[in-house]
Amino acid sequence: MATPPARGPILRSRHAALPVYRAIQEHLRALIAGPDYGPGDRVPSERALAEQLGANRMTVRKAIDGLVAQGVLERNGTSGTLVAAPRVRRPVDANTSTGIARIVQSAGGTPGNRLLHFEEAPASASVAGRLRIAEGEAVMLFRRLWTVDAQPFCIETSHLPARLVPGLAAEDLVAGQSLYALLRARYGLGPLTGEREIGVASCGEMEARLLELEPGASCLLLRLVSSDADGRPVEYTRSVNHPGRVVFRSWKAELN
Amino acid sequence: MATPPARGPILRSRHAALPVYRAIQEHLRALIAGPDYGPGDRVPSERALAEQLGANRMTVRKAIDGLVAQGVLERNGTSGTLVAAPRVRRPVDANTSTGIARIVQSAGGTPGNRLLHFEEAPASASVAGRLRIAEGEAVMLFRRLWTVDAQPFCIETSHLPARLVPGLAAEDLVAGQSLYALLRARYGLGPLTGEREIGVASCGEMEARLLELEPGASCLLLRLVSSDADGRPVEYTRSVNHPGRVVFRSWKAELN
Repeated sequence: MATPPARGPILRSRHAALPVYRAIQEHLRALIAGPDYGPGDRVPSERALAEQLGANRMTVRKAIDGLVAQGVLERNGTSGTLVAAPRVRRPVDANTSTGIARIVQSAGGTPGNRLLHFEEAPASASVAGRLRIAEGEAVMLFRRLWTVDAQPFCIETSHLPARLVPGLAAEDLVAGQSLYALLRARYGLGPLTGEREIGVASCGEMEARLLELEPGASCLLLRLVSSDADGRPVEYTRSVNHPGRVVFRSWKAELN
Repeated sequence: MATPPARGPILRSRHAALPVYRAIQEHLRALIAGPDYGPGDRVPSERALAEQLGANRMTVRKAIDGLVAQGVLERNGTSGTLVAAPRVRRPVDANTSTGIARIVQSAGGTPGNRLLHFEEAPASASVAGRLRIAEGEAVMLFRRLWTVDAQPFCIETSHLPARLVPGLAAEDLVAGQSLYALLRARYGLGPLTGEREIGVASCGEMEARLLELEPGASCLLLRLVSSDADGRPVEYTRSVNHPGRVVFRSWKAELN
């Protein structure tokens, strides 16, 4: 078998200024950022990469070792090398706030949360529209950062019409009890049903810093409106999720 | 009431080279790309924007008119100005392939699809991993572009182990019949259940061009693995969704 050339065509053209193992890393990073690869997907074998890229297999291994050390890839004895699995798989059917800690725990992680912000503030146009209240009406706004094994993965900002939750205090939220249990027990609000929408947004500066992302990076955005039995919105939560640490998943559904 | 200055501090600092109405448009575009606004959300009123930005109200109106003409914003008689609603709200519980046409129709749109690609090809590492077959094993691969009122909103690439679907032909897919009905009737595969994951990815060049996005734009990525009653994967579909034209939504779920 012929020895592959030290530097194949792809690496020559796109990453000419980098050392070969770094060029291979950039190639792999671009590959797994694209639509063909997702968290947990198997990447091409060292041998296949060496052939495709016209690189030495030991150099390919060095590149992969580096990405494994950075947490971008994972080695799996039987399945080869995988795109690192997301730390959190959030079921889109289950509830958001109280659910997160349980979801993290059931996947073997240690959940944590930090109250970043708590205030009574006038509703912005977008919040007022979701809660079907007047722009400027008072809302209780609080923001929490969620972590798995001390690694931040999501920022949730909740808004409730202030008149529905008189006396709501930051202490009510730091104890880690369920918001919905509190709304029901203290304010008689509930049972509530939630409707969710999942989309893409650019991180703001604050979100990027807290989630350890580049400013303007794309994130998975979940919006939840909780309503009471009369269909009246009680809570609107925006949840900004780290794109590499979180995926949303649905339950098994029959296809037809 | 004092007349606001012609050019307020925000516009002066960030978009100094642009005409004022264009600077306001860039400000609004950045605002609605961020995590505080989503499709269908109400944006600040003309008056509020004029005050915040220190701009003339007529100039704000001109800026908004332009964004409405571009389909970025929508006017709503009772609710003011909204971020354009997504054309397609895909329920994450319902099925993917046959469901799309119905989802589009039930929202009053006219669905369309085009078969972009059909071939038998060796499974890539990532596809093989999802289908739990050997890398390089033959898969039937087909890719369809879905449109709503002739506007492209998603590209779906499906992979099935070729040995499970002998004789599958492009004609089977262009007629628009349900893939799952075909798998069941002709190949005895089914009923199938699907598991979905939703994440973010960068568009490849092909996806960006077909979805009318900038190369490298972020898209909503849905991955679906369909399995038979024995848990054996039968189909793996990657669905690349336009970030402004599609949101995923869940059914109402009880919160506790």
